[in-house]
Amino acid sequence: MSLEAVSRAEITPAEARRLFRDGLVTPTAGWSAGYAQANLIIVPKAQAFDILLFAQRNPKSCPILGVLDAGETSGPLLAGGDIRTDLPRYTVYVDGEKVADPTDITEYWRDDLVTFIVGCSFTFEAALQEGGIRIAHIDQGTNVPMYRTSVRCEPAGEISGPLVVSMRPVPASQIPDAVRITARYPAVHGAPVHIGNPEELGISDLSRPDFGDPVEIPEGYVPVFWACGVTPQAAVMESKPSLAIGHAPGHMLITDARDSSYLV
Amino acid sequence: MSLEAVSRAEITPAEARRLFRDGLVTPTAGWSAGYAQANLIIVPKAQAFDILLFAQRNPKSCPILGVLDAGETSGPLLAGGDIRTDLPRYTVYVDGEKVADPTDITEYWRDDLVTFIVGCSFTFEAALQEGGIRIAHIDQGTNVPMYRTSVRCEPAGEISGPLVVSMRPVPASQIPDAVRITARYPAVHGAPVHIGNPEELGISDLSRPDFGDPVEIPEGYVPVFWACGVTPQAAVMESKPSLAIGHAPGHMLITDARDSSYLV
Repeated sequence: MSLEAVSRAEITPAEARRLFRDGLVTPTAGWSAGYAQANLIIVPKAQAFDILLFAQRNPKSCPILGVLDAGETSGPLLAGGDIRTDLPRYTVYVDGEKVADPTDITEYWRDDLVTFIVGCSFTFEAALQEGGIRIAHIDQGTNVPMYRTSVRCEPAGEISGPLVVSMRPVPASQIPDAVRITARYPAVHGAPVHIGNPEELGISDLSRPDFGDPVEIPEGYVPVFWACGVTPQAAVMESKPSLAIGHAPGHMLITDARDSSYLV
Repeated sequence: MSLEAVSRAEITPAEARRLFRDGLVTPTAGWSAGYAQANLIIVPKAQAFDILLFAQRNPKSCPILGVLDAGETSGPLLAGGDIRTDLPRYTVYVDGEKVADPTDITEYWRDDLVTFIVGCSFTFEAALQEGGIRIAHIDQGTNVPMYRTSVRCEPAGEISGPLVVSMRPVPASQIPDAVRITARYPAVHGAPVHIGNPEELGISDLSRPDFGDPVEIPEGYVPVFWACGVTPQAAVMESKPSLAIGHAPGHMLITDARDSSYLV
C-alpha cells in the first residue's frame, strides 16, 4: 500500500491511525499536515512517577502533551484510537535492552502500563518552512538526525540519562529566525539548546547520528540542535526499568491536536 | 519580634527562612522583594504520582517549580534550608481533614514524603504594581481573597477537586494591562482564568472568601480571577489521602529563585 505525498498530508489523524492499526508501516513525516505528532514512552506504574518527574525536570526534551492512566489505551489526543496499535512501529525495551520493534504492542500490554505522550519537533518544522527555512532532512527524504550528547539530564529517582538532540542545518543568516520561530513552541521542544560547535555537546561526528539518518550540511550552514523527544528512551536504555515501550524513531503518534494549539 | 516593611522587603530568602525556622510566625507578603514565594503540598510517595499528574493536567493552578524526592528536606530552591521548618506556618491534613496548623512539621515527617513546590501569584503582583495597577489586598494590608469555584480540575488517579482562584479588583481600563502582564508569567499562574461575573464560577458572595480575607471592590473596578496554588490543598481535602501537608494560607515558602526568572 502506498499513498502519494499529497494524500499523506491531507489524511486526518484518525484515518492515519486506522491505516497503521490495519497494518501499514511507514515513517510519519509529512502525514496529516497541521496536526501534532508525538513521541511515546510507556512504563509500568512503578516507574511512572520517576518518568513524570524526569519530564518535569527536563521540560525542553520531555514536554508532556498527555498522560494515559495505568491500563488506559485511549485518550483525547487519539480519540477513538488505541495506543497499542495506532503507531506504525514501536520499540520494546526489557531491562534497558531493545528486544523488539513490533508494529503492534498488544502482546506486551499490561493493566499497570502508563503512557506518556511527549511533544515532537515535527510540529515546528512546518512553521520553520513557512518562515522560509528549508529543512534538510525533509528535502533529502530522510529521518532527522539525532545524537546522544555529553550533557546530562536532571535525574529523577531511578531515571537518568543523556540529553538527546535533533539537528537541522540552518544558513547563518536565518538562525535568528529559526530561534525566534521555534521559541514560540515551548510544548514541542521550543528554542534550540545549542548552535554550532557539536564538540561541546560531545558529538564527534555529525555524519554518524545515534538515531535517524545523517544529512548533508551545505557550505555556510550551521548545525542547530534542539532537545529531542527520544531523550526518555535514552534514559530507559541507561536506567533499565523492567519494561518500557517507545515509538520507533520517526514512526510517531499522529494526534488530534492542531500544531497551532501549541503556539504561544 | 517585628520587622519594618523596608527590612522585610530587603531581607534575603535565606535570612527569612532562618527567622521562620527560629520561630517567627508571620504572613510572608512583602518579604524578600524580587524573590519568588511558593505554595507547598507534601504527600506520601504512594500519592505522589497522582499529585504530579494532577499538576501536569492543571498547569494554570498547579505550576510546579520544583520537587524534592521522597524524604528530601532541602533543594536548590531553598539552599541550606529545611522544608520542615522554614515556612512560618503549615496546614496538616489527615484523611482530608485539617488536623493542625503547626509552625514546624518535624514531628509529622516521614522518609516517604514527597514535596511539591508550586508557583504563587505573589510573583506577578510586583510586576502588576510596576505596571501601575494597584493591588487591593496589599493596599488594605490583608491576605488575597481566594474562592473554591464550581469549575472542576482535570482529575488524576485518586486526586480530584475544584479550581481555586484568587481575586484582585482591577479598574476596567487596566484589565488589558493586567492580562498582558500576568500572561508573561506562566510558571506562576499566568493570565487570568476569568474576568467579571463571579456567579459563572459558582461564587455567590465575594465578601466571603474560602481562604484569605475579603477586599473592598471600589466603584468601576471589576473582579479579576487567577488560578491559585491552594488548588492542590482543596483537592487533598476532597480526595482524602492519608496524610498531606501544605503551607498555611499566606504563609509561603520564600525561595532563592528570582521573580524575574519566571518571566517569559
